Amino acid sequence: MILHFAILIHTYYFSIFVARNFSHLPLTFSPIVQIGRGMVVFVCFLDKASEETVEKLTKHIINIRLCEDDSGRRVSICDIQGDILIIPQATLGGKLKGKAMQYHMNVDKTLGEALYHRLCQGVRTAIEAVSSGNVKCGVYGARQILSTDTNGPYTHIVEV
Amino acid sequence: MILHFAILIHTYYFSIFVARNFSHLPLTFSPIVQIGRGMVVFVCFLDKASEETVEKLTKHIINIRLCEDDSGRRVSICDIQGDILIIPQATLGGKLKGKAMQYHMNVDKTLGEALYHRLCQGVRTAIEAVSSGNVKCGVYGARQILSTDTNGPYTHIVEV
Repeated sequence: MILHFAILIHTYYFSIFVARNFSHLPLTFSPIVQIGRGMVVFVCFLDKASEETVEKLTKHIINIRLCEDDSGRRVSICDIQGDILIIPQATLGGKLKGKAMQYHMNVDKTLGEALYHRLCQGVRTAIEAVSSGNVKCGVYGARQILSTDTNGPYTHIVEV
Repeated sequence: MILHFAILIHTYYFSIFVARNFSHLPLTFSPIVQIGRGMVVFVCFLDKASEETVEKLTKHIINIRLCEDDSGRRVSICDIQGDILIIPQATLGGKLKGKAMQYHMNVDKTLGEALYHRLCQGVRTAIEAVSSGNVKCGVYGARQILSTDTNGPYTHIVEV
């Protein structure tokens, strides 16, 4: 059963990411989040997502071999001591109906926000235990500015 | 039946995209493709994709209401005279197996390239008939540098 989607964009060499919430604050007062070489994870929780979903997703993010080491081998984000930016992206749960997207499959907002924070916390704890990489997060439910530089977009969809 | 995935990243206000193939040429000789305010489409053709798939996808790209007009209404890319960048992204067809992605579901490369060019041509023809927006394309089968600026990433998955 599909409980959520995650999209991983793998980047290397020159990656810079900024996620900034500007829905309530003037830009100059908004928090800026930035990561270096690493991975951006867009996450959307669908209906029936649970703590178990979060645990599985955390393991996938930590273990999935989508990064490239200096010899060109596919390795995990921990293996390259890379950074991770986790961005809430509820639109991923949309289904095309006619010419418009509908979002009836998404989890309710309160649970979605709780699961998102749980995921960020879980990934951060797991990364800190084995890597010097940083884990940064976006703001749930807010429109955020995002800038990315990638040496080859490398986008995957993972369903749990 | 799922024949392909397309991911649409909608951007507004400050969007700049550069796709550059650097697999065979030095950077200074590589073609640079840039679009302004508009939409980036990542496309992957799975096994059994056909001309019919391309036609359906072309219609979705032209008609889908994922752009925002000045009054905040959701409208099509044509309605805002926006640009489109179509990027081949075979990795979208991957399935997670253990800790690695496998790509057995993808169409063979020759057909994939033909369908990709057909899609680019179809979208360009359709856009030129009704809009002043530009349609730009990536290079099939090559790693490409991509830079994006978005005022709120707004990512959707469309399966045909």
